[in-house]
Amino acid sequence: MNILRFDHTTADWVVYAPLRKLRPHHQQTSSVPSQESLRDTKEFCPFCPGNEKMTPAEIYAVRPAGSSGTADWKVRVVSNKFPALRIEEDHKRHDDGVTFQWMGGCGAHEVVIESPDHITSLGHQPIEQIELVLKTVQARYLDLKRDKRFQSIIIFENHGEGAGTSLRHPHWQIIATPVVPRLLRLKCNEATEYFDRTGDCLYRVMVEAEIKAKQRLIVGNDEFVAFVPYAAHLPFETWILPRRPQATWDSVEPAQIRPLAEILKTVLLKLYDALDNPDFNLTVDMAPRGDEDREYFLWHIRVLPRVSTPAGFELGSGMSINTTMPEDAAAFLRDGDVR
Amino acid sequence: MNILRFDHTTADWVVYAPLRKLRPHHQQTSSVPSQESLRDTKEFCPFCPGNEKMTPAEIYAVRPAGSSGTADWKVRVVSNKFPALRIEEDHKRHDDGVTFQWMGGCGAHEVVIESPDHITSLGHQPIEQIELVLKTVQARYLDLKRDKRFQSIIIFENHGEGAGTSLRHPHWQIIATPVVPRLLRLKCNEATEYFDRTGDCLYRVMVEAEIKAKQRLIVGNDEFVAFVPYAAHLPFETWILPRRPQATWDSVEPAQIRPLAEILKTVLLKLYDALDNPDFNLTVDMAPRGDEDREYFLWHIRVLPRVSTPAGFELGSGMSINTTMPEDAAAFLRDGDVR
Repeated sequence: MNILRFDHTTADWVVYAPLRKLRPHHQQTSSVPSQESLRDTKEFCPFCPGNEKMTPAEIYAVRPAGSSGTADWKVRVVSNKFPALRIEEDHKRHDDGVTFQWMGGCGAHEVVIESPDHITSLGHQPIEQIELVLKTVQARYLDLKRDKRFQSIIIFENHGEGAGTSLRHPHWQIIATPVVPRLLRLKCNEATEYFDRTGDCLYRVMVEAEIKAKQRLIVGNDEFVAFVPYAAHLPFETWILPRRPQATWDSVEPAQIRPLAEILKTVLLKLYDALDNPDFNLTVDMAPRGDEDREYFLWHIRVLPRVSTPAGFELGSGMSINTTMPEDAAAFLRDGDVR
Repeated sequence: MNILRFDHTTADWVVYAPLRKLRPHHQQTSSVPSQESLRDTKEFCPFCPGNEKMTPAEIYAVRPAGSSGTADWKVRVVSNKFPALRIEEDHKRHDDGVTFQWMGGCGAHEVVIESPDHITSLGHQPIEQIELVLKTVQARYLDLKRDKRFQSIIIFENHGEGAGTSLRHPHWQIIATPVVPRLLRLKCNEATEYFDRTGDCLYRVMVEAEIKAKQRLIVGNDEFVAFVPYAAHLPFETWILPRRPQATWDSVEPAQIRPLAEILKTVLLKLYDALDNPDFNLTVDMAPRGDEDREYFLWHIRVLPRVSTPAGFELGSGMSINTTMPEDAAAFLRDGDVR
């Protein structure tokens, strides 16, 4: 059973997904075959073509016209075999007294397999394949939003072991949550207050200021701009934002997919070259349900290279120590060659 | 120069400490001798007795009566050689327009070398040595607070490479910050609202509820109690709290040091045995300057084993996925043997 518990000290909901009934200490030393041990062998990779039966039921796929249930897919979406949250759970709140509140682990946890290719990372895929991935993720986002229990849709990719991935075959993940995460609520509140005070969108103002300042810009096109933000928390942290006023992917139009794929490819290849294929996480931050048409927010992609390890100061204070000035990171990324 | 920049999207101050002037990509591939390469050789360990000249100037030390500046210290405190924040910087706010605000990197960054022993971890030290460490950290905390520019004192230990430590010789760190970290302010606000609503301390109520519920308790004595909290964010996350109403270490009395050393030793040894010497971070969370005597808060030690890797979901949403129910973690810790 999946549940969430409320942490009164921080106002966070914490997800509990005790997937295996083994005793806790076995998590680290289990001799049972796990995702981990299958990680780098194509034969046993559940995401490789021909191994479709190794995954939970297919939710969505892009295939040549006329095909169905075959191994000739180009992008494939399945449920996560070890889900953080599940559609079958309810989202009732329960009160066990005093500081003990919990709710059902209602939500969804999907995997978007980027391509049939076991090795090639997203940045090295042809632009058409990146477009297919983005279109697929958007389609799943829109479909998941039809379930009104889901307050937020969290979209991300983990690349490399240091970034928390357990299966090498490149894939995105989508987790629908039955609550708005506190961090997202915080970001919305900060931007809403800015909007109430100034009548302007904080993110739009930031984009304009970064374009004017130039020194943290990496690349731009007619639809999008990529930069290392002025107050980046991590070395080489890179943001991609739209030039249109869009709070979520509800309003992203088909004509924007190609330029988004192009700027994402460029950013990923620049990071790949500059940092020698770093582990990284990629997240898509959007306004929560109900705020799709609000002016205060712009959705943004954050690419977060894992080149430093958060330690006691970060965990204790929540603050970050960044050893690379954003201007230096941007200059280095900007001037590097891109294939 | 150290500075902080304000992230308007989250209201976080981010610390910038570009310690080396090498180009950013050299951070990972530098051939210059670094802390890293010295990590596990006593001969070159700046924290081992006899190597006192390898550290910045000594700030504090516990030595036999009559000794001074010698290698016979029992606990030693020095400035961090690569500080996140520095006493010499100012804390003026600067406004470079629009979304670009920064301030001087004013603060302090000290290292508390736990003992002359290069290897032995804190939990395996004699109880008297743990007492010396705690007394020393408290003394440095009280001294740093005399500088009224410092709004918060962040106290932590990193144990193991996966927890972000770069020098093996066991040490605590103390960072004084010129701002109250946003996460700490959040915790204070949640607890203050609880106090305003109920007239009670959220942390005291939580301690009482955990004692009554029993199932997440690990160990207790007359002064302190240790448990895995109901909504623990991480597997085996363990908190130690005082039974007295104390918001900070300003009011911790000498008579409490021995029982604190005892409960800390027990917790560390239980985690060591249960998880086979896990990497971990330890933090001491306290109310910020000015709230030392407020009733809404209890200081608490959090021990955070690094047995899972936060990934895109955690970075994107700020929420945690915990695969171990707190009751299971506590039962396993409670029933394990302790040497």
